[in-house]
Amino acid sequence: MRFTDFDKTESFKTLSALAEKGKNFNYTEELTSDRVKSLLADVGGGLTYSYAAKPVCDKTLAALQELAREQELIAKYQAILDGETMNTGENRKVLHHLLRGQLGKDVVFEGKNLGDFYKKELERFSAFADAVHAGKIVGSTGKRFTTAVQIGIGGSDLGPRALYIALENWAKTEKKQKMEAKFISNVDPDDASAVLASVPLEQTVFILVSKSGTTQETLANELFVKEKLQKAGLDLSKHIVAMTSETSPLAHNPAYLDAFYMDDFIGGRYSSASGVGGVILSLAFGADVFKRLLKGAHEADKLSLEPDVRKNAALLDALIGVWERNFLHFPYTAVLPYSQALARFPAHLQQLDMESNGKSVNRAGEPLNYSTGPVVFGEPGTNGQHSFYQLLHQGTDIVPLQFIGFAESQRGDDVTVDGSGSQTKLKANLAAQIAAFAKGKQDANLNKNFKGCRPSSLIFGKRLTPEALGALLSHFENKVMFQGLVWNLNSFDQEGVQLGKVLTKKVLAGNSGDPALEAYAALLGV
Amino acid sequence: MRFTDFDKTESFKTLSALAEKGKNFNYTEELTSDRVKSLLADVGGGLTYSYAAKPVCDKTLAALQELAREQELIAKYQAILDGETMNTGENRKVLHHLLRGQLGKDVVFEGKNLGDFYKKELERFSAFADAVHAGKIVGSTGKRFTTAVQIGIGGSDLGPRALYIALENWAKTEKKQKMEAKFISNVDPDDASAVLASVPLEQTVFILVSKSGTTQETLANELFVKEKLQKAGLDLSKHIVAMTSETSPLAHNPAYLDAFYMDDFIGGRYSSASGVGGVILSLAFGADVFKRLLKGAHEADKLSLEPDVRKNAALLDALIGVWERNFLHFPYTAVLPYSQALARFPAHLQQLDMESNGKSVNRAGEPLNYSTGPVVFGEPGTNGQHSFYQLLHQGTDIVPLQFIGFAESQRGDDVTVDGSGSQTKLKANLAAQIAAFAKGKQDANLNKNFKGCRPSSLIFGKRLTPEALGALLSHFENKVMFQGLVWNLNSFDQEGVQLGKVLTKKVLAGNSGDPALEAYAALLGV
Repeated sequence: MRFTDFDKTESFKTLSALAEKGKNFNYTEELTSDRVKSLLADVGGGLTYSYAAKPVCDKTLAALQELAREQELIAKYQAILDGETMNTGENRKVLHHLLRGQLGKDVVFEGKNLGDFYKKELERFSAFADAVHAGKIVGSTGKRFTTAVQIGIGGSDLGPRALYIALENWAKTEKKQKMEAKFISNVDPDDASAVLASVPLEQTVFILVSKSGTTQETLANELFVKEKLQKAGLDLSKHIVAMTSETSPLAHNPAYLDAFYMDDFIGGRYSSASGVGGVILSLAFGADVFKRLLKGAHEADKLSLEPDVRKNAALLDALIGVWERNFLHFPYTAVLPYSQALARFPAHLQQLDMESNGKSVNRAGEPLNYSTGPVVFGEPGTNGQHSFYQLLHQGTDIVPLQFIGFAESQRGDDVTVDGSGSQTKLKANLAAQIAAFAKGKQDANLNKNFKGCRPSSLIFGKRLTPEALGALLSHFENKVMFQGLVWNLNSFDQEGVQLGKVLTKKVLAGNSGDPALEAYAALLGV
Repeated sequence: MRFTDFDKTESFKTLSALAEKGKNFNYTEELTSDRVKSLLADVGGGLTYSYAAKPVCDKTLAALQELAREQELIAKYQAILDGETMNTGENRKVLHHLLRGQLGKDVVFEGKNLGDFYKKELERFSAFADAVHAGKIVGSTGKRFTTAVQIGIGGSDLGPRALYIALENWAKTEKKQKMEAKFISNVDPDDASAVLASVPLEQTVFILVSKSGTTQETLANELFVKEKLQKAGLDLSKHIVAMTSETSPLAHNPAYLDAFYMDDFIGGRYSSASGVGGVILSLAFGADVFKRLLKGAHEADKLSLEPDVRKNAALLDALIGVWERNFLHFPYTAVLPYSQALARFPAHLQQLDMESNGKSVNRAGEPLNYSTGPVVFGEPGTNGQHSFYQLLHQGTDIVPLQFIGFAESQRGDDVTVDGSGSQTKLKANLAAQIAAFAKGKQDANLNKNFKGCRPSSLIFGKRLTPEALGALLSHFENKVMFQGLVWNLNSFDQEGVQLGKVLTKKVLAGNSGDPALEAYAALLGV
């Protein structure tokens, strides 16, 4: 494998030459019914990716196909699957795909088969969840657990929380909800205090999630929880399980009811399919539901190995994103799920994308001369339509859009007004927005004029099930991975979070050495 | 008053000439402790605006002062306060300031003093809330109301919801919480269905919020609620109040328990301080709490009349934002509250800003040749630090940051770990981030290098009280207003939301006339 900066590739030149064509893409002429019906790719999990409303023609797609070949994207993905050290900065493997199934060689590290290790941990926490549901594991007063509270931040919070919210209504409808789940993340003491005041402590099991066991916020919140448990006369060791690495101080520690393990090859933002998401989702919905999510993700992972870009949704989505970022120069992208269940999914993708590809150096630590990861934001539709869509339609800048939608609701509870149900209205709004953004509408009154030419993609499926959700998760993980590989950067480290941590410790110790920083601390009453 | 496009002003030239200076602003040298202590402006409500970490020098500030003079920003704000028709596109006054107190002439429309009208409605819904709390108004089975559910979308949802979440923990701590509040907004039927399954219908009062009484989502959700109430054998007319304009079909309608009124001079995204936010906040926390919020907002509105930009926080924040948008060319801005209570405040500001200033034409409907409103996004700190801050620190583009923080938590419940409480850690993180973003840190390993030069502002205060929250709300409303006036656009209409509505209706009627749009509808199973 060769690792080449994007602007040193032949494809960069080819795409640069096509840029004008992309900028002048005529959506009104090009976006035909045939195009909508044919520009589709299978995502997995019953989902389909539609890219008809993207400014790409056969020439662009051919150039993107050539880019995939030239940057050896599939070979590099296969190298990740085979356990090569692709997180170069931290000298680590990248194994979140292995959590959901094996698509490469056996990955062995220090004599341990890691696929087996992950499977074993999956079975361990599945059995734990089963035992809790069966009342075989109970709280220190002998009462059954009804509530699970995750203590974690970043990847230990956003992904699991987004997935829990995404499946909560589905699970209630399918009679799969077994326990309520809540989350404590922020070091703001109001977060832990409010959550703890809202749960029945005696019947609550806490999941303490920190790979290193040293995360400042999580340790502070652990003590918060411990003090409340103690005050309630409960035995700490019967109410907290740890989800951590085997080398952390939380591991093999009798202070906890149990512990489940991951390792350094699972990055925080890629850990939703490990015990980081798995313990709480298995407790909330049952291990079978979590395994269905893994199945959907694995299916999407497998499809991501397809070399033909037109048949590989994650790869194509990635390449079109690069096209928009580096040649059409759009600095952001919005994620717009037409599904209330995906309310926090954009926040998870915001982390996944911005923490992975918000980098300025290549894998070798050399400066890059082109734009990398965009700003990602979003809210569910139709809510967003009544909020920030004004700018998306008529603002001075173009924001590429990523829509998500489903034929059926999760709860199947609906009402008919003016001849249509709410779910139908939701979908009609989504279809209408795609057309409105692409084609606009001319009006002599410029205040009512819509320029159109706003590109969008759509991922759609029948219903947001665990399989669909797993595939959706994988789609975006693999999209971000492929983009990082095009940009020749390391999507798996996050050195940009370190400086703030170091300075915070100095402020707390009173030795920052920077009078300006001390002055800010004084303004805030530190 | 003259209305001039920004690029036709003398100030535009002056600021263009200063742009290089701004781009090369030396944060490490300039950001001294003295600067931090002196570049402060009073926001109102006990809050202070700090702009020390913004790339402005005396010359820039002088040019921004001159811009304020040249574009007559204070005079135009006064014209708004005096009830002139400043929403030109819709031929309407702009009176959201008048809801919280009078700062201009009496505003009379069709013989009605509107200040008196707003005050009367405030007292009417205050009395309604008092009567509900006193058990004088009860549900149709005679039981007391314990829960209030708002049915509304966009401005009828985001602002009130953000404010409710912002005060919930404060209210619980101060023994002010009187009822629980929930919100139904999305036309996705899962939204209404899930909320309705989670409330005690018999003891729930619904607030139906739609100025026109014709919002598709809100009418669908109203029927959703009515069907559930009927099924539960409850009398609809005892469980729903309307918050609408007097000309809407919801007004003076015996089908509702009561109705409270606003008018066309209060735009949706500016309506939080009207009954749109007021009814539900008064029910949840008591009318006295809502009035304290109005007091804080009024105080900030008054301070926004100050002509000296250094003493007018909202004006200065607006002008620095213009400086960053049009001369330093940053296309986005992040809102980062270090307060879990402000979890949904960025979503409200996203609407406020992007729907107000995401425009491409001036007040006269002529095209603009400069960038207007930026993309706004954000999540609370420290959560965001473990998510998208990687890109903010080390991405290829610069995102200006707007921090918010408080000396004290709302609940006063804290825990000490490693010698400091969580609230202290929260504040230390905030101070550290400002310094890290501004000054960065050189490292020979470019992967660990921080370029710095990331500008930020900070709004800080003692505690997030109703007064502080009201001032915060007003600060951003007035900031957005001043920016719209600089850009010579109409911040108070939203024509960009119309096309999607029109096309949706056509899709539902099966007559869109666009085969591509029909094809999208078919993919989604419409």
